[in-house]
Amino acid sequence: MPFQHTVRVQFFEVDLQGVVFNMWYLAWFDTAMSLFMASLGFPYDESMRDGWDVQLVHTELDWRGGARFGDEVVIEVDTDRIGTTSFTLGYRVLRAGDVLVTAKTVYVVVGIDGSGKRPVPDDLRKALTG
Amino acid sequence: MPFQHTVRVQFFEVDLQGVVFNMWYLAWFDTAMSLFMASLGFPYDESMRDGWDVQLVHTELDWRGGARFGDEVVIEVDTDRIGTTSFTLGYRVLRAGDVLVTAKTVYVVVGIDGSGKRPVPDDLRKALTG
Amino acid sequence: MPFQHTVRVQFFEVDLQGVVFNMWYLAWFDTAMSLFMASLGFPYDESMRDGWDVQLVHTELDWRGGARFGDEVVIEVDTDRIGTTSFTLGYRVLRAGDVLVTAKTVYVVVGIDGSGKRPVPDDLRKALTG
Amino acid sequence: MPFQHTVRVQFFEVDLQGVVFNMWYLAWFDTAMSLFMASLGFPYDESMRDGWDVQLVHTELDWRGGARFGDEVVIEVDTDRIGTTSFTLGYRVLRAGDVLVTAKTVYVVVGIDGSGKRPVPDDLRKALTG
Repeated sequence: MPFQHTVRVQFFEVDLQGVVFNMWYLAWFDTAMSLFMASLGFPYDESMRDGWDVQLVHTELDWRGGARFGDEVVIEVDTDRIGTTSFTLGYRVLRAGDVLVTAKTVYVVVGIDGSGKRPVPDDLRKALTG
Repeated sequence: MPFQHTVRVQFFEVDLQGVVFNMWYLAWFDTAMSLFMASLGFPYDESMRDGWDVQLVHTELDWRGGARFGDEVVIEVDTDRIGTTSFTLGYRVLRAGDVLVTAKTVYVVVGIDGSGKRPVPDDLRKALTG
Repeated sequence: MPFQHTVRVQFFEVDLQGVVFNMWYLAWFDTAMSLFMASLGFPYDESMRDGWDVQLVHTELDWRGGARFGDEVVIEVDTDRIGTTSFTLGYRVLRAGDVLVTAKTVYVVVGIDGSGKRPVPDDLRKALTG
Repeated sequence: MPFQHTVRVQFFEVDLQGVVFNMWYLAWFDTAMSLFMASLGFPYDESMRDGWDVQLVHTELDWRGGARFGDEVVIEVDTDRIGTTSFTLGYRVLRAGDVLVTAKTVYVVVGIDGSGKRPVPDDLRKALTG
């Protein structure tokens, strides 16, 4: 079962078209990703302490509908793919069970010392494989 | 030659990693798109008056680098593809000539009366084909 | 007892100084205000249906400290003052019991038909007096 | 004559009320402040190199009107007051010469080494006094 994070659409996230402006979905995904990683045992401060961080190299979003002010939406996060130095998470935004948005983001693991890409840590790989 | 819109990276757009947080690129693209459309003769209020608007159905971004506080970056916008009821714009974010981000967004033309998809207006099609 | 709304500081809300960028406090207050109003029986869609809305005319914030990424902070909302056509809400942002920020916002009640200011509705006045 | 920074209201800054959501004024002021400081000879990276930064301790805003999508607005910045360890800047947001918003922000000068408040540097004091 995918990790779930629930948000209520805020007033300022809604634009003149009456739906959530596109960039806020990326904000939601980032927060859901942080919570997902923490749920796997990799909170941000710990991975930093271990000397690695992740960088986005690719993200894609498909909209079927738009969330509206006050809507309660569920953001689902799941592992999509794990490569050598990167992993891909899949996202779904649901309102009352209907999928509004699907998305994928590719994260590359990098050293925080500027050393560049490094292999996905074994324990993270195991946790993401779940 | 693609349409160009220049922005200077603002303090609040930069996150703890020292680079522009991912969602702000979508904000930049949206503003660049508005200005591009206006430059073609289709400012937002006029298309609204003509009864149509556009909705994002897909967007994808690829990062090669991240912009930093105070950087002056150029956002290039170009027509990528025109379909029956949708069109695709391509975006490039450049700093000092280097490409930091490339992106594509697919827009569907819809009636503002809730009538759903409609063909890309002929004059817009012509203007986008440029 | 004041109304309370809890938020967890998100990654993108934190700036290069390592603390929440100032504007996000206004975002938090707006959401806390919406929830406070709903808790009093005045959700946004209902006041709109009743023909009125509120406009900010003044806000002031005092910072004693800054929230950091991952902090869980409580936003307290309380009625500060009720005038003829306006009311003032007080806000406090607390982390582990410590006050980080205090704020006040003055809202004017206006007709959504463009008729301008109108008296604070009696039932809202009663609810705010609590 | 006050320092001036011009912005065009972006689509995502406008909320369901049709006007710029309150928090974005703080974003504009922050950017205008950075440019004002740079114009005085104190760009952010230089003050950081000199070991000091500023922290907001107070801000207040008064709205007379709201900017709308596409509006070109001018943000004026001026020195309001200089204290021992703090200084206050005044802001005005104008559209076609009409004042929409006035604001004041108090900044405290702090060491970036965590040493706390320090006197406003003499050269900054002189530049702010203009």
